[in-house]
Amino acid sequence: MERNQVYNFSAGPSVMPESVLRTAQSELLNYKGSGMSVMEMSHRSPAFQEIFDETKALLKEALNVPDTHEILFLQGGATMQFSMVPLNLMYRTGSADYAVTGNFSGIAAREAEKYGTVHYACHTANCGHTVIPSQEQLHLSKDASYFYYCQNNTIYGTQWHYVPETGSVPLVCDMSSDILSRPVDVSRYGIIFAGAQKNMAPAGLTVAIVRRNLMGHALPITPMLLDYQTMIDKDSMLNTPPCWCIYMLGLQLKWLKEQGGVEEMQRRAAQRSQLLYDYLDGSRLFRASAQPSARSQMNVTFRTRNAELDAAFAQGGAQRGLKHLKGHRISGGMRASVYNAMPMEGVQALIDYMNEFEREHI
Amino acid sequence: MERNQVYNFSAGPSVMPESVLRTAQSELLNYKGSGMSVMEMSHRSPAFQEIFDETKALLKEALNVPDTHEILFLQGGATMQFSMVPLNLMYRTGSADYAVTGNFSGIAAREAEKYGTVHYACHTANCGHTVIPSQEQLHLSKDASYFYYCQNNTIYGTQWHYVPETGSVPLVCDMSSDILSRPVDVSRYGIIFAGAQKNMAPAGLTVAIVRRNLMGHALPITPMLLDYQTMIDKDSMLNTPPCWCIYMLGLQLKWLKEQGGVEEMQRRAAQRSQLLYDYLDGSRLFRASAQPSARSQMNVTFRTRNAELDAAFAQGGAQRGLKHLKGHRISGGMRASVYNAMPMEGVQALIDYMNEFEREHI
Repeated sequence: MERNQVYNFSAGPSVMPESVLRTAQSELLNYKGSGMSVMEMSHRSPAFQEIFDETKALLKEALNVPDTHEILFLQGGATMQFSMVPLNLMYRTGSADYAVTGNFSGIAAREAEKYGTVHYACHTANCGHTVIPSQEQLHLSKDASYFYYCQNNTIYGTQWHYVPETGSVPLVCDMSSDILSRPVDVSRYGIIFAGAQKNMAPAGLTVAIVRRNLMGHALPITPMLLDYQTMIDKDSMLNTPPCWCIYMLGLQLKWLKEQGGVEEMQRRAAQRSQLLYDYLDGSRLFRASAQPSARSQMNVTFRTRNAELDAAFAQGGAQRGLKHLKGHRISGGMRASVYNAMPMEGVQALIDYMNEFEREHI
Repeated sequence: MERNQVYNFSAGPSVMPESVLRTAQSELLNYKGSGMSVMEMSHRSPAFQEIFDETKALLKEALNVPDTHEILFLQGGATMQFSMVPLNLMYRTGSADYAVTGNFSGIAAREAEKYGTVHYACHTANCGHTVIPSQEQLHLSKDASYFYYCQNNTIYGTQWHYVPETGSVPLVCDMSSDILSRPVDVSRYGIIFAGAQKNMAPAGLTVAIVRRNLMGHALPITPMLLDYQTMIDKDSMLNTPPCWCIYMLGLQLKWLKEQGGVEEMQRRAAQRSQLLYDYLDGSRLFRASAQPSARSQMNVTFRTRNAELDAAFAQGGAQRGLKHLKGHRISGGMRASVYNAMPMEGVQALIDYMNEFEREHI
């Protein structure tokens, strides 16, 4: 069946490369002559182990993960990591620093309060989460078990454009919505985690990259599946992993490599978002929601002069195949999520539509 | 691509109906004219909500789930439920009864010890887990928060053929490997849960059916995603659910309904397993591993006179397209998993091969 020409600006789950989907389709009933779908394969079979190992190796290569760190394939999304991080790292001092710059870091901080003392390194709610604090604005504790932040805030369309400097305090970063969109120096982090459903794979897989020498001290009440050390020991297969999602991640990582890796993704992300922000800055109807220094390259948030017009814009977009432009219910306005798999043609189609809408409603 | 004629006896992930896979394949790039794959759809979109609601309704219908109970779509497999059950139900009295009749109920019991006192209602390890105790053999505590058992033991090939009578103590049952293979009176249970990867969907989805009036009292240290009440309140969408697996479950439930529902699955399961056990009971080379009264209709475990011959049998099977006949490393021997989607032709092909192998090695 032909795919209609639709551009999917959903914040997640989100657009995937068409060639990746075509490969999945062609292999769906019979993976490489095995007579089985990947969905039917024992996770202990050599065929699946090969998929698993290759996917892990591709991710290690794509993000240049050093040998000090372990790549884990988990379940439960970022929300499960909100619990798993303090359960595993709070042992160090009993307290942790949280930089709250949006909805999800706020939820993570409140969850961590169950397991220790949370110091708020910043809280940008009073600025409507439209900013990212500078290094100097962060309140750092010397005795923090770790420093936690969310690198890209999908709802507010903001993104950290620097890596916080925290001395000997390990960095923990939620990269759910911008992983694989730019290079990252993994060696600087204690834990990086990301729900897969933006730049990696279908929903149902969470990738965690953890520094081995921090693990092995989970709180005694930690559920067995939520102990990073156990998952390291079992190479993510304490129980059946989300096999199909891992397979899809592998396909997407092959695509990413063919396209030129994270450096090329960074170039494209800059290009896509720059086009949109340039348009918004010159518009007499639309304006970008986030402060210029904090603008996200993944989720471009914007609005018109009122909510009715915002709704009309999103609705009109959907009718012409520009899907999911409505902003999150918390923030209102509009949001164009332009992840790795969003082609430049989609961005151009959106700008054409904005131009047209502006002329009609100015 | 044509599917080779292969019969997949894997204990899980396991064989799926070919027509289900063909539908998934045909819709993979463009779900019902949306121009999107189900893998790319926002979980908050009307299109996905429809899939979600329909799947839930089909499951409610298939298992005749009463309105006192809620169906939840979770992640983490049965292993996550090993923690989630005590975290949510141990509040009642601080202790629970566990019937250990295999590997996974044993792991569940040890996990529960983190959160309360575990009484062992039975422990069949000294019989090599080849039996299921009778009602009279169960040691029941009056003050148990719940009574826990695993209805079908995939590794040992045993299955409970009655529902334990525990008075006012709620039943909690791991039905991972036999859910949807026979009717169940859900009203008798506090919690039923099942990893999807045997009779339901690809790995990465866990179904829980919970009685609402037991919930809302999770231990304070419970991770937010592991509180059944929260998931009830959010209709399983506190965060992004495993959308693709839910979609695949919906397809498989439609297939199940077309085939005649769980009553027909029960008839087929009896027929498939009876053929195999009859053959084994008459064989001079093979013998069934489980005691007759405890035999599973889902996982038929058997062995020859020695491990070398067992290995040769499994290997020879694989060469002729009878895949994954090797038993679990814990139990040794062989195992033929004959779930809902295993056609009778597969069982017949296996018996033909056993006959041939027996003639050669007797």
